[in-house]
Amino acid sequence: MGPHPAVAAIRLAVRRVLHDVLNDHLAQDRPGAPLVLVACSGGADSMALASALAFEAPKLGVRAGGVTVDHGLQDGSDLRAAEVALRLRALGLDPVETVAVQVGEATRVAHGTAHRGGGGRHAGGPEAAARDARYAALDATADRLGAVAVLLGHTRDDQAETVLLGLARGSGTRSLSGMAAITGQDGRYRRPFLDVDRQTARRACLIQSLPVWDDPHNTDPAYTRSRLRHEGLPALEKALGKGVVEALARTAQLSRDDADALDAWAADAEGAVLDDSGSLDIAALFALPPAVRRRVLRRAVIAAGAPAGSLFARHIEEVDRLITAWRGQGAINLPGRVGVRRQGGRLVIRRG
Amino acid sequence: MGPHPAVAAIRLAVRRVLHDVLNDHLAQDRPGAPLVLVACSGGADSMALASALAFEAPKLGVRAGGVTVDHGLQDGSDLRAAEVALRLRALGLDPVETVAVQVGEATRVAHGTAHRGGGGRHAGGPEAAARDARYAALDATADRLGAVAVLLGHTRDDQAETVLLGLARGSGTRSLSGMAAITGQDGRYRRPFLDVDRQTARRACLIQSLPVWDDPHNTDPAYTRSRLRHEGLPALEKALGKGVVEALARTAQLSRDDADALDAWAADAEGAVLDDSGSLDIAALFALPPAVRRRVLRRAVIAAGAPAGSLFARHIEEVDRLITAWRGQGAINLPGRVGVRRQGGRLVIRRG
Repeated sequence: MGPHPAVAAIRLAVRRVLHDVLNDHLAQDRPGAPLVLVACSGGADSMALASALAFEAPKLGVRAGGVTVDHGLQDGSDLRAAEVALRLRALGLDPVETVAVQVGEATRVAHGTAHRGGGGRHAGGPEAAARDARYAALDATADRLGAVAVLLGHTRDDQAETVLLGLARGSGTRSLSGMAAITGQDGRYRRPFLDVDRQTARRACLIQSLPVWDDPHNTDPAYTRSRLRHEGLPALEKALGKGVVEALARTAQLSRDDADALDAWAADAEGAVLDDSGSLDIAALFALPPAVRRRVLRRAVIAAGAPAGSLFARHIEEVDRLITAWRGQGAINLPGRVGVRRQGGRLVIRRG
Repeated sequence: MGPHPAVAAIRLAVRRVLHDVLNDHLAQDRPGAPLVLVACSGGADSMALASALAFEAPKLGVRAGGVTVDHGLQDGSDLRAAEVALRLRALGLDPVETVAVQVGEATRVAHGTAHRGGGGRHAGGPEAAARDARYAALDATADRLGAVAVLLGHTRDDQAETVLLGLARGSGTRSLSGMAAITGQDGRYRRPFLDVDRQTARRACLIQSLPVWDDPHNTDPAYTRSRLRHEGLPALEKALGKGVVEALARTAQLSRDDADALDAWAADAEGAVLDDSGSLDIAALFALPPAVRRRVLRRAVIAAGAPAGSLFARHIEEVDRLITAWRGQGAINLPGRVGVRRQGGRLVIRRG
């Protein structure tokens, strides 16, 4: 008799990713068995992931380890981390590490440019600060241990929530593309569970008698993602039917492919409209489809020094009107002291 | 003292569209004052639209008329339509017509291909059947009266709902692009209120003491759109903040531009991969970005006879695997008896 379907599903998802990782490793002709880490909070998703990694890795000649990050944001979080490490070792993972981060500090070191400046406040709020600190710690640990990949436990439900969060920004196709299955330096981070639903991960833990920790943040209505999970998405499912989570996850993949293709087109088009002085040819810009033209404009003003994070669709639309709705308007001032003006048949972009 | 802000907003929105319509009319060098119709159900959105049209049109030398459609789906709907026509005439619109449609019948005549075949059942359900019948009647009326444009009262809130309905299909960027501001034959249909919220339209009616009719369907939880309006969207706003409707409407515009650009690329790429025998070059397909390749494949199988409405993302993905994950698989059978197989370095698409 085979394993319970939930357990089979999580193992299959991990096996697929391990095959990919192993192929990459062999293609690079590196010596020895590759080490794959699981990033584990102790929650159901990442505990299920850890159990599947522990089961599959030895069969493929892959070494499996684990890392748990102590964000130090709650009393006793160090004890919690130590307990998660014990559980990972009990699954057979080795090495297992706990890494303590100070959210403000680690962020400042690793992602200095993300700050609004002053006071250690993080541009994306406390959730983003914790995330940045976590990835900096995971990067450092993977480097130190020589791991070829770090598995992350994000599920299809997390993906659906991420798409809705992107939708709320209203900034288009790229913001709807959710989380990538492969990301980070050299594709180090992998998300095997993007097609696995949260319920399956929870069931797999239950079946395997794995104790899991429910992060109180996940049900705290002070957090946008938590409100989305417990109120927004259920209401949307009630209105639109049970397939919403799957549809959102599929939207992520399709949007990612579309955004990639359009970015490639814009990179290509930029070469054709840009002259030696760094200004852009208006007639050539005008001939591009609006979606491509706006991406070329965005690239050009970022290249001139405008910070990407402060540049909104309305800024680019205003620049676009110098091309499509010209009626003698003056220079457009953008974040980062970047100015754009129309001069003869050209668009001149300069940092002031 | 100027008009109330809500009244000013609806008038400005209509004025902008009338300017466009007038420019098109003058560019075509047609004689006489152009006639613009408003399609009016008697609800707040289209009554506000009618009032703004009646106010703005004379100032621009545009003739303003109205049409209301009686779907015959409820007892007394003929009296309702007659009452709406009276109200439109009271606003000064002329001509005003009421048009009765039989939902099944009109659909069969005007949109024969949309049927699943047999029994008069409509592929998109009763809501889609009523919509098709309505547009067929509006088209016929505009033709008969020689109208250059028909204004539709869809608001930003309707647009947001349409984007969410598209999201629930999970079929990508085109399905997120909502309703077009300009659509139909020769751009006949215009939606001046896509940037106006429903609340503004309602307020404008109140201020102008215009009686409005609330369609009971709009609050009937049997309808997906109604559930979305009264439960789904409010819950999403509670989780994500009040800007959700605006973000969804902006997503529609950005998605439409992105989908247009990618469709143009695919049309262009198709010429380069298609040979005289109607088969496609695998190597050339492989070199395209996935988003463009899948659009080329979709175009090709539709051209071969597969009905667009029965063709889902999973069909195209299966065809795509003949190119990206070739392991000797046999012919792929698609709706409309279209078969796709790999033969040497080519993809052969045939109707069986």
